[in-house]
Amino acid sequence: MERNGPRALFFDVFGTLVDWRNGIARESEAILSPLGHGLDWLAFADDWRAQYQPTLEQVRSGARAYVKLDALHRENVQPVLARHGVTDVSEQTLDELMNAWRRLPPWPDVPGALRRLRARFLLAPVSNGNISLMAGLARTNSFHWDAILGAELCGDYKPKPAVYLSACAALDLAPQDCVMVAAHTYDLAAAAALGLRTAHVARPDEYGPGKGEAAPGMAVDWAARDLSALADQLGC
Amino acid sequence: MERNGPRALFFDVFGTLVDWRNGIARESEAILSPLGHGLDWLAFADDWRAQYQPTLEQVRSGARAYVKLDALHRENVQPVLARHGVTDVSEQTLDELMNAWRRLPPWPDVPGALRRLRARFLLAPVSNGNISLMAGLARTNSFHWDAILGAELCGDYKPKPAVYLSACAALDLAPQDCVMVAAHTYDLAAAAALGLRTAHVARPDEYGPGKGEAAPGMAVDWAARDLSALADQLGC
Repeated sequence: MERNGPRALFFDVFGTLVDWRNGIARESEAILSPLGHGLDWLAFADDWRAQYQPTLEQVRSGARAYVKLDALHRENVQPVLARHGVTDVSEQTLDELMNAWRRLPPWPDVPGALRRLRARFLLAPVSNGNISLMAGLARTNSFHWDAILGAELCGDYKPKPAVYLSACAALDLAPQDCVMVAAHTYDLAAAAALGLRTAHVARPDEYGPGKGEAAPGMAVDWAARDLSALADQLGC
Repeated sequence: MERNGPRALFFDVFGTLVDWRNGIARESEAILSPLGHGLDWLAFADDWRAQYQPTLEQVRSGARAYVKLDALHRENVQPVLARHGVTDVSEQTLDELMNAWRRLPPWPDVPGALRRLRARFLLAPVSNGNISLMAGLARTNSFHWDAILGAELCGDYKPKPAVYLSACAALDLAPQDCVMVAAHTYDLAAAAALGLRTAHVARPDEYGPGKGEAAPGMAVDWAARDLSALADQLGC
């Protein structure tokens, strides 16, 4: 790494490191199928995830105080289930569904690449997921973080500037010493506007086959076909 | 672990997991001795550490807004050096001394015991040290935390209740599901008053030979001669 190279990598998690779509479909089926429910599991996952940005916007806009992403997942799941014809679900089952977000699988390149990157950089999730959700996903996938930063530390949601800046400040680093790593241009654009460096990781199938960002929609410092390729580019 | 046993262990760090006294003495000598300074390194470490509680009290009392422990260490080191006859020290050297707190050695039982405990419990520092300081110490000593909780997450200092309660809340746990692990009765007393369980680890030489807590000064849930013995008691 050059003398003035970055010191820390900040990771978006849902979609960038873990496959929420197939993960939620699989976990929801495992929870609901034994209860006699059959639905289009991938469509259910898509619909649940589609609540994500509108719900976060209530917090970002100030219309609502910060609450953990877990709580938003929990609120949103019942109406989405209802739209899929499932109405008779216990509170315990709804909690289990909320916790399915802790058991999402990594994209296959991720575990090995994170181990390589950790030898050279501080690594932290800067996700909209709350601390316990990030800690749970780290246990599920053997991610080894230096710290869990992001929305809960800040009390607001990406792409609000304070989320990125609070992460830099927690590590005593200037924005230019930090790289935001994400599969989503909107996330990288917000980080770049604050002076962070940016790395795009292609996840062309995030929302289904061919429905994801195969390339960044803006100029970035690094663009990689997966996290292993990013580790190569960063000289790890 | 019994069904209703604890889920998370919260660790005090300075004195409980790492030997700040010998560490600061050694690191300060390594920084200052090449500059021609010779002083009683252990006495210097003791005097620097003696600023700790009075300085934190300014924040706890509300007289001063929260600032990171790093900043307090940095402020305090210059007057303490002056009392030891050292006055001509550059800003860079003062920064290096501040960062010596990231390079403290563990008590010998700690690394192996943390690995054992991690198989069964969520592990987090709940220290007055800031996030970057905890992350640095974790790198120095290969500690693997699930999250870094404590003072910076809360914006106040132990033994204020909010520090312990913010740690429980970050992991979605009730206080009785969490164990505060410390070598200091005052820390355990504050945690116990909030309903956390308590584990005392003896560090009889923390402040010098025979100058540390060999036993808790209150009833605790577990009292252990070191962290390895605590892991034994917890069935790890």
